[in-house]
Amino acid sequence: MPDLPTGNAVIGQSGGPTAVINQSLAGVIEGLRAGLADRGKVKRIFGMRHGVRGIAKGHPEELVDLTGTSAERLERIARTPSAALGSTRDKPDDAYCDQIIEGCRDDNVRYFFYIGGNDSADTCRIVSEKAAAANYELRCFHVPKTIDNDLRENDHTPGFPSAARFVTLAHMGDALDNASLGGIKINIVMGRSAGFLTASAALARSLRETDDNPAKRPAPHLIYVPEVPFAMDEFLADVDAVYSKLGRCQIAISEGIRDADGKEIGPQLMASGEVDAHGNVQLSGSGALGDGLSDILKKGLTPAGGKSLRVRADTFGYLQRCWPEPSAVDAMEARTSGRHAAELAAQGDAGASVTIVRTNNALDSYRSTCGRADLSAVARHARHMPPEFLSGRNNVSTAFYDYCYPLVGDLPRLERF
Amino acid sequence: MPDLPTGNAVIGQSGGPTAVINQSLAGVIEGLRAGLADRGKVKRIFGMRHGVRGIAKGHPEELVDLTGTSAERLERIARTPSAALGSTRDKPDDAYCDQIIEGCRDDNVRYFFYIGGNDSADTCRIVSEKAAAANYELRCFHVPKTIDNDLRENDHTPGFPSAARFVTLAHMGDALDNASLGGIKINIVMGRSAGFLTASAALARSLRETDDNPAKRPAPHLIYVPEVPFAMDEFLADVDAVYSKLGRCQIAISEGIRDADGKEIGPQLMASGEVDAHGNVQLSGSGALGDGLSDILKKGLTPAGGKSLRVRADTFGYLQRCWPEPSAVDAMEARTSGRHAAELAAQGDAGASVTIVRTNNALDSYRSTCGRADLSAVARHARHMPPEFLSGRNNVSTAFYDYCYPLVGDLPRLERF
Repeated sequence: MPDLPTGNAVIGQSGGPTAVINQSLAGVIEGLRAGLADRGKVKRIFGMRHGVRGIAKGHPEELVDLTGTSAERLERIARTPSAALGSTRDKPDDAYCDQIIEGCRDDNVRYFFYIGGNDSADTCRIVSEKAAAANYELRCFHVPKTIDNDLRENDHTPGFPSAARFVTLAHMGDALDNASLGGIKINIVMGRSAGFLTASAALARSLRETDDNPAKRPAPHLIYVPEVPFAMDEFLADVDAVYSKLGRCQIAISEGIRDADGKEIGPQLMASGEVDAHGNVQLSGSGALGDGLSDILKKGLTPAGGKSLRVRADTFGYLQRCWPEPSAVDAMEARTSGRHAAELAAQGDAGASVTIVRTNNALDSYRSTCGRADLSAVARHARHMPPEFLSGRNNVSTAFYDYCYPLVGDLPRLERF
Repeated sequence: MPDLPTGNAVIGQSGGPTAVINQSLAGVIEGLRAGLADRGKVKRIFGMRHGVRGIAKGHPEELVDLTGTSAERLERIARTPSAALGSTRDKPDDAYCDQIIEGCRDDNVRYFFYIGGNDSADTCRIVSEKAAAANYELRCFHVPKTIDNDLRENDHTPGFPSAARFVTLAHMGDALDNASLGGIKINIVMGRSAGFLTASAALARSLRETDDNPAKRPAPHLIYVPEVPFAMDEFLADVDAVYSKLGRCQIAISEGIRDADGKEIGPQLMASGEVDAHGNVQLSGSGALGDGLSDILKKGLTPAGGKSLRVRADTFGYLQRCWPEPSAVDAMEARTSGRHAAELAAQGDAGASVTIVRTNNALDSYRSTCGRADLSAVARHARHMPPEFLSGRNNVSTAFYDYCYPLVGDLPRLERF
């Protein structure tokens, strides 16, 4: 039995919410109850309102006591999308992390669980190092979460499969809508620097289609991700090749597409220029990128007979990350990853990031388990789509289909005349 | 046994597709097989590709023979969203209707089924009258379809319940997203002249909430429909009242909102100005209305402390009408309404529009049946939300909840801390 500190535990949620982030929250609580709380090492379990704002000294939010939350209520919360405790975009600097440690000291917190992306892993890392330097025993655990699927050391991250399911279903329905009335349809998908979510649109094809000729693929005919440099003249040529052949074209485009110099296309087409606390320009919650690309297509392509081109753009926006009907695999894995964080703590781990490890990739017998990584291995750095998931400049590979299909759950079987 | 002509039948689909328009198609085919075809009055069943373009003389599209389509394949097609035969925005004038009748004559068509909105009912009416005047026996039946829910003589129309389910689920998830990070969230919902679909956002509240004070309602806090004149100063005051109290505000807005003079707000804020064959300005497939309203809020509201206001807008666009997971009630009613059209024909009806009639409104024992109306009673005219469905300038009434809840199907039960 490892030598463990005795005190309280806090749990927080950070960054953009997902459909299953509360499964992870419920998992941590369940894991604590079955382990550290049962053994008397954890006295009370607190939730931090709006992430670290809920504990950092001098910040306005507060803690909520989850110690006595009933299993039934916890189950309902687990099935509810978006952060039940509230979230935050704050990225604590050194002084802020000192305030977090002060808050922990005040409430005798010895176990710190943070559900989020690589910024949250970094918060865990800094708080953990600073606590050690200050000789305050605090064990910090990061539970993975992000629809962008851009965490290192993970096969994939909780939140991604549900968002990918939404993007797939949306492209399935929209492809048929586009087929019934014709024209060009642009769909803007979330993902600032990683293209996994946009790539999942390919699953709408129901076939592992990798034909070099986009006019021979089922819709979506064209897929553009941030990992492949985007050139406007190539884009126009690609769309023209499909539209002139089929009279229609469905396109999935990541909000984060960038040119050969790495400069994002979105801000170049947008008026807002609003910047968040991380220095990122606002890409979601606005139709500007889609509308800008529509205008470029309308001006750049001239259909036969001088007819005006029907071009439409939908920006999937916030619907894709909190849709209340998640992937079943995702819900299960998010729960398990939360539970695993509490188990690591009970095993005497001094602090870690939980990871998702795939153990069997076959579609009908997919399996995963949880592992651990050092906080520094996950913190800050983003993961990108590997080259073997891509095919040419506007498509995904068979390897990507094999990777993504098991995650999204059963899909409707569609048929047309 | 009525005296019925012997010949072929055609079926077409028109206008914006829905998630269940192929259920209606399958229903007509099943109804014909069980009735007129079984009795030898209908020899072949044809589908018109892209609506009346598929039969009108001189138009490029063609017929597809559905006579031998297997029941199994038909079932798969029924479960597939969007028009399986393709759709059209053509609104036939007199000359075009003559070409339709010529096409019918060439193929010995005696039964004409058209699935669509009030424009489609009008096409049926004109074709029916012209055929009678030309002494060509042709029986025309309109099968109702529209997510806008704006057909007269109908309690509601197939397509609406599924779109309403999408809008409800979207607002449920998005309300929690908005609650977790705060700020103002605008959602633009389809519906050019009728607000039913936007109003269905209210079902996301899980309560029949009609409090006069929007800050006391669960999200969506504010709902704006075309039936209530929209004034920008009132809009700013409404949003301010909620945001200053809660630090957040979720708003459902119809794309068709209009000012006290009846002028649409959308085109006043938009650059595109693209006009379709019906003379309508393009409202969907662009984020311009949402982005325009966002800009107005950012400029018009000044939050305490000089902080910049977080305002996001999502335009639901085409996802809401072809989402591949429809309302079960909707799928059933769409199928039944198609079958009823074929049954009316078999009973000797000379031409009619099928209607949906509610027979029991209780949530746990909701029932509906099909009726008939004259084509002229449904053609052209749009139905609007009755005053008793509205509450103040930015909410719905208890009567609307009671009307809409039974249609959308089971909703997730959500819970937060």
